Amino acid sequence: MTPSNWETYLVTQASISGDRSTLEVVSAAIEGGIDVVQLREKDTTARSRYELGRALRERTAAADVPLIVNDRIDLAMAIDADGVHLGQSDLPVAVARELLGEDAIVGCSAWRVDDARAAERDGADYLGTGAVYGTSSKDVDEAKDGIGPDGVAAVADAVSIPVIGIGGITPANAADVVDAGATGVAVISAITAADDPAAATQQLGKVVANV
Amino acid sequence: MTPSNWETYLVTQASISGDRSTLEVVSAAIEGGIDVVQLREKDTTARSRYELGRALRERTAAADVPLIVNDRIDLAMAIDADGVHLGQSDLPVAVARELLGEDAIVGCSAWRVDDARAAERDGADYLGTGAVYGTSSKDVDEAKDGIGPDGVAAVADAVSIPVIGIGGITPANAADVVDAGATGVAVISAITAADDPAAATQQLGKVVANV
Repeated sequence: MTPSNWETYLVTQASISGDRSTLEVVSAAIEGGIDVVQLREKDTTARSRYELGRALRERTAAADVPLIVNDRIDLAMAIDADGVHLGQSDLPVAVARELLGEDAIVGCSAWRVDDARAAERDGADYLGTGAVYGTSSKDVDEAKDGIGPDGVAAVADAVSIPVIGIGGITPANAADVVDAGATGVAVISAITAADDPAAATQQLGKVVANV
Repeated sequence: MTPSNWETYLVTQASISGDRSTLEVVSAAIEGGIDVVQLREKDTTARSRYELGRALRERTAAADVPLIVNDRIDLAMAIDADGVHLGQSDLPVAVARELLGEDAIVGCSAWRVDDARAAERDGADYLGTGAVYGTSSKDVDEAKDGIGPDGVAAVADAVSIPVIGIGGITPANAADVVDAGATGVAVISAITAADDPAAATQQLGKVVANV
């Protein structure tokens, strides 16, 4: 499963998972057919992410689901993740490529066309583009007001690597994002805060697959 | 210059350097004879630290002064630093050793005797121990109220690796810290916020050398 096949992408965030642990949410998402998982958890220490990351690596590897680490290349190396996802304020894509090697997956957040082209030029394997819609999660790399499907289309037209839409995406609006040119959609709350994360993942996967 | 020879250790913090850049403060400290520099700058992005780190690497390498990176092993690798300094909430010492290799310098913050022994056992090359005195800088790994020279002595007696005292240290109290068993002293404000950082570094070095 490489980025060109990623239709559903879960970004972890324990703070909105209620009584469930991140490992439980990820397990449910795997059950529902998630294509890739990103360990983010920005509000915890590196040590906590390392401990969680080792557990997620074991679970995702058993299911043959790629695991990507947000921001920290060292953490990705430490837990033998499949790659990293870098924001515009993180270490450069070229540094990640050099440290992780050719086989690693390096993603980059980019919603401005210039940033998207630069990331592709620097060797990114895919882009995370958004926020597509208004979103409750905070990320300095995301457009604040939502770029909409048109914004996704602008980026997708400008690069030849896969574009994953992120930000405020639900089963109700995911089709528009893929219609606009996204390969797939990344979500936090649509899975993490769902009553039934496995069912929510499955539903999201169906919507994207049917576009 | 290895940790067993470190008498003066500067930890960078741009927020208290006034009109001077961190590069200027580090240059002045080098002029004053600093033995080692740690890039910390916790309040900036990884990208900013990477850009600053490249400049600091060039400057420190030219002066043959070791450069240590706080927390981020990947950043240390990216800028070819001499090593990392890890807190109790950062990635484990053993992970740093594995990623950086035997020749890298791996330091660890520890003020509890048990933590100090564990860090030594895991392969740390030196300890940062404190806060020795009350300190204005915030660090979750530091004892809040100051462990005093007695606390430094307890750690220094428990391990055979060098112990660097940190937290509230000035030329006026540095001798007590070294008397207690520290190899050297780490400071932020005593150099960074000094009227003349080069002179402050030199003064601190004289105090420690004369113990």
